[in-house]
Amino acid sequence: MDIATIIGLVAGSVLIVASIILGGAPLVFVNFPSVLIVFGGTIATALIRFGMNDVLNSMSVAAKTFSTRLGKPQQIIQEIVNLANIARKNGLIVLEQQPIEDTFLKKAVMYCVDGHEAEFIDEVLRKEVSLTAERHEVGKNVFAAMGNAAPAFGMIGTLIGLVQMLSNMADPNSIGPSMAVALLTTLYGAVIANLVCLPMADKLGLRSEEEQRNRKLIIEGVLGILKGLNPRVMEEFLQTFLPPKDRVSSEKK
Amino acid sequence: MDIATIIGLVAGSVLIVASIILGGAPLVFVNFPSVLIVFGGTIATALIRFGMNDVLNSMSVAAKTFSTRLGKPQQIIQEIVNLANIARKNGLIVLEQQPIEDTFLKKAVMYCVDGHEAEFIDEVLRKEVSLTAERHEVGKNVFAAMGNAAPAFGMIGTLIGLVQMLSNMADPNSIGPSMAVALLTTLYGAVIANLVCLPMADKLGLRSEEEQRNRKLIIEGVLGILKGLNPRVMEEFLQTFLPPKDRVSSEKK
Amino acid sequence: MDIATIIGLVAGSVLIVASIILGGAPLVFVNFPSVLIVFGGTIATALIRFGMNDVLNSMSVAAKTFSTRLGKPQQIIQEIVNLANIARKNGLIVLEQQPIEDTFLKKAVMYCVDGHEAEFIDEVLRKEVSLTAERHEVGKNVFAAMGNAAPAFGMIGTLIGLVQMLSNMADPNSIGPSMAVALLTTLYGAVIANLVCLPMADKLGLRSEEEQRNRKLIIEGVLGILKGLNPRVMEEFLQTFLPPKDRVSSEKK
Amino acid sequence: MDIATIIGLVAGSVLIVASIILGGAPLVFVNFPSVLIVFGGTIATALIRFGMNDVLNSMSVAAKTFSTRLGKPQQIIQEIVNLANIARKNGLIVLEQQPIEDTFLKKAVMYCVDGHEAEFIDEVLRKEVSLTAERHEVGKNVFAAMGNAAPAFGMIGTLIGLVQMLSNMADPNSIGPSMAVALLTTLYGAVIANLVCLPMADKLGLRSEEEQRNRKLIIEGVLGILKGLNPRVMEEFLQTFLPPKDRVSSEKK
Amino acid sequence: MDIATIIGLVAGSVLIVASIILGGAPLVFVNFPSVLIVFGGTIATALIRFGMNDVLNSMSVAAKTFSTRLGKPQQIIQEIVNLANIARKNGLIVLEQQPIEDTFLKKAVMYCVDGHEAEFIDEVLRKEVSLTAERHEVGKNVFAAMGNAAPAFGMIGTLIGLVQMLSNMADPNSIGPSMAVALLTTLYGAVIANLVCLPMADKLGLRSEEEQRNRKLIIEGVLGILKGLNPRVMEEFLQTFLPPKDRVSSEKK
Repeated sequence: MDIATIIGLVAGSVLIVASIILGGAPLVFVNFPSVLIVFGGTIATALIRFGMNDVLNSMSVAAKTFSTRLGKPQQIIQEIVNLANIARKNGLIVLEQQPIEDTFLKKAVMYCVDGHEAEFIDEVLRKEVSLTAERHEVGKNVFAAMGNAAPAFGMIGTLIGLVQMLSNMADPNSIGPSMAVALLTTLYGAVIANLVCLPMADKLGLRSEEEQRNRKLIIEGVLGILKGLNPRVMEEFLQTFLPPKDRVSSEKK
Repeated sequence: MDIATIIGLVAGSVLIVASIILGGAPLVFVNFPSVLIVFGGTIATALIRFGMNDVLNSMSVAAKTFSTRLGKPQQIIQEIVNLANIARKNGLIVLEQQPIEDTFLKKAVMYCVDGHEAEFIDEVLRKEVSLTAERHEVGKNVFAAMGNAAPAFGMIGTLIGLVQMLSNMADPNSIGPSMAVALLTTLYGAVIANLVCLPMADKLGLRSEEEQRNRKLIIEGVLGILKGLNPRVMEEFLQTFLPPKDRVSSEKK
Repeated sequence: MDIATIIGLVAGSVLIVASIILGGAPLVFVNFPSVLIVFGGTIATALIRFGMNDVLNSMSVAAKTFSTRLGKPQQIIQEIVNLANIARKNGLIVLEQQPIEDTFLKKAVMYCVDGHEAEFIDEVLRKEVSLTAERHEVGKNVFAAMGNAAPAFGMIGTLIGLVQMLSNMADPNSIGPSMAVALLTTLYGAVIANLVCLPMADKLGLRSEEEQRNRKLIIEGVLGILKGLNPRVMEEFLQTFLPPKDRVSSEKK
Repeated sequence: MDIATIIGLVAGSVLIVASIILGGAPLVFVNFPSVLIVFGGTIATALIRFGMNDVLNSMSVAAKTFSTRLGKPQQIIQEIVNLANIARKNGLIVLEQQPIEDTFLKKAVMYCVDGHEAEFIDEVLRKEVSLTAERHEVGKNVFAAMGNAAPAFGMIGTLIGLVQMLSNMADPNSIGPSMAVALLTTLYGAVIANLVCLPMADKLGLRSEEEQRNRKLIIEGVLGILKGLNPRVMEEFLQTFLPPKDRVSSEKK
Repeated sequence: MDIATIIGLVAGSVLIVASIILGGAPLVFVNFPSVLIVFGGTIATALIRFGMNDVLNSMSVAAKTFSTRLGKPQQIIQEIVNLANIARKNGLIVLEQQPIEDTFLKKAVMYCVDGHEAEFIDEVLRKEVSLTAERHEVGKNVFAAMGNAAPAFGMIGTLIGLVQMLSNMADPNSIGPSMAVALLTTLYGAVIANLVCLPMADKLGLRSEEEQRNRKLIIEGVLGILKGLNPRVMEEFLQTFLPPKDRVSSEKK
């Protein structure tokens, strides 16, 4: 679970809901047709832009961002160094029986165990990294496009409401409530865009970068294991990929 | 037929029309002069920017995007592998009689049958790919420019309506309806831009990328046939152009 | 005459004027001080940004875009092929007496007739192409800057009008008309920017690209003539610079 | 202490507070729920985008920008030249006992004293420079994202207030004060963004550039000491990295 | 004196002041606290972003742009050709006594007279060109940042005024004038940004480019003098840096 994303979404929602409830009459803020036009319109244009597959894909990518947490580079380095130690003592073949959580590391180790050449492993793994990055990029683009569309459909809904109100002002007492309803779509659009879509788009982008960094670490590490590098040398080498404050030499432990 | 685009356009339109009808008095939203100034102004500036040819061209490119559906890369690979098998058994010349749906693949195969050299075929096909991409780019630019112009002309229309209303406020009862009419152009501009033009511009851009990817697949495949590559080797090679989840090895079938 | 630009400007203006006249009392929309502040302010900032020379230059570039029409690449190719045929039969020197409309082609041919070397001609002509492109770029930038300044000065005019109206609301009946006048500058700014300046900026950019493409065609063609290439070979070679649908082989005629 | 940043923040705040107090009834401008929704929402989306670590990091980076002042390049050059003189007379080993304020220079000198090779020192120090730059980049991005989110949440708060006010207009006297409160969030958002977040983002970016320039100066200087360059030659060489008006030759002193 | 900049600033100011005076009661537009919050806030954020030095620097760069006029490339070429003629007849050493207005040309010539090598002169002069360009870049950035901050502080001032007005609507007659004052800051911000800061930012950018072009001309010319090039050849060579219409061969004079 990516806790910061959850905290951010929950905190933002709570703040908005609280300030609505504190104002009294929270039901004024619930209007199904308004939800429909903003949410529906946003999804509709995402379909036009990206097609069904990419939209669904982006949802699953986002869900995965919620539910999984990226391993910290430091942990990955420790795991690789452990594997290197084992491989040194007992040979590459033993690695097959090691429990490895990270699926990418698992796959990389399997390539080694299967006896593929370093060059082949490097190429295949790099290709997979870039393909995953591409899929994340699409997810980011879908959320960014929805973040741009939501306020526009909020404004369209408000304009429709205003035209309806203005063309029928027989009862002056209904002006206020009608305009309140008209403004709801703008509010919905702003919340969808600024609390959900745009931050998620940025998140997916950053997450993709982090994942790529982790995976490049794994590729370097596994190639090192294959070459039979000294585990301690390898640890130091992999550490150079991290910012200084994150570097932990195994001796200090 | 590109179904997602249709679904998106229809769903978006239905949502907007429904919320208009639900508000009663839908005829208030129909105003021919307002349509004229927004739609006409948008087209007029597109003519200034791009000239007649490019504007018509972009319409035909958009229409083609609606009416045709891009082949899936997986199907294209299968078709190429089939052709490779046939060519292996019966020689290149037989390919001429094969029914090939994709016009670009058809043309590429014909070049092989005609006995052109690999280098020539590669160059000619690549040039065609980049020229088609250029035309799609123009189509995208035209829609993007119209998507930017439509809200501007919506605002111009609203400003004209406001000035007319404000300069003649003898009858207070007419203020509401006059302002409703004035806002219509802004509404039209927002809908044209956000439901049609901007999503279509993005769509044409993405479609162009997909088409280029397909065609590069075809070029690689046809060159492979020409070299007499083993069909199974070729399939695996072409598969590396696809994201992992889309890869289907022919054995699994 | 570049017809599309004219049609666009006329059609856009007619639509705006028509919707003003249809609303009755068109004279409300004519206000000389408002014209002055928007138009004058826009020109004033263009002077600060670019200086007198560049502003005047951009006007002349724009005027030239109106009054001349770029030759179609196909026609240029035909003309070059004709010249190549003549040069083949009667020698380069005869080309001097050929009537050539396009001034750039004329100049290029003259360089050949004068016996300059291919390398020199290539360099001189390329330099001229890039210098013309630079001047067009300035023209584009001036119009784009005016397109950004016009709405800003429209807003400044409206703010001045609003402050004047609000600080003196003794007579409630004057509020409407005063506000109508205040909004006029915003309307002027929006029309100047969206109907004239921004489309013209894009137009000059596109036109510059087309002109460069034509001139590169001419350079290639003239160098071909100098080398004594077979006219039919040359035609085919020059055709590869065009999109497929524009290619016309001379045999089909 | 970076005085300009402090002066700017204090002056901007004083101006805003003063103009609030001069208007009488400053307490109208203090509204805790409004603070909560704007500030909380801005932080919440920063958490979604960047995660807890990066947000805290950016705060500490910003705090460090306040509390420390970058050494001027000229002073750094003087210090390096002094060290070079000492090293020339008494050998590299003596540098260990020199008091060096700048931690990066200290570390660089220690590498020399420890007898590492020039190539190694160069690589290690450059890596550290680029990693610090990366962390500053994140700080800049966090502030920029908050600067974009704050006005959005200001608008969300205002929309909530407007809907509440409009849906309950029984008492006309409460309209003014309700709308005043509704506008507060927009005001808060604008101040947070334009006085704090966006300028801080730019500041961090510029500061990072300056720090990088200083550190490159240090790397060049320390490598020069290691090579045993003549201090005067080195001073002149390092001066070439500065703009002319900042160059001070040691003779003039 | 750069006349176009002066004309632009004066004309823009006159237009705005005139339209204020024509509306009667111009004193309504003068409000010292409003000036303070917009101007002060804009300067304050510039201090945060750039620090004291860069802000003062940008003012001096702007002042210099007003007070000096760049030499025309054609004049510079003539001056260089004259110097080349003199150097040819009487030797390089005589150049020392020639009166040279342009300080950069003067310095370049002095390097020649002092007997430095071409390579050294080239390097030193190029470095100075790029450092001046950097300082101009900072000036441009400061003005652009102030151009973005001014409207924001205008809006902040207006929001403060609106909140004050809305929270105290006891006397309906004061609403108009209060709102007029509130709008003043928005007006100030728009004028500062669109008439002064943004155009000046663009101006400094363009000016910097022109100055760089002139100085590159001077570098080429002085290196030519040093090599003892034939003055006429050199003139023709330097002319190729100019757009065709600016080229004047000395014979035509």
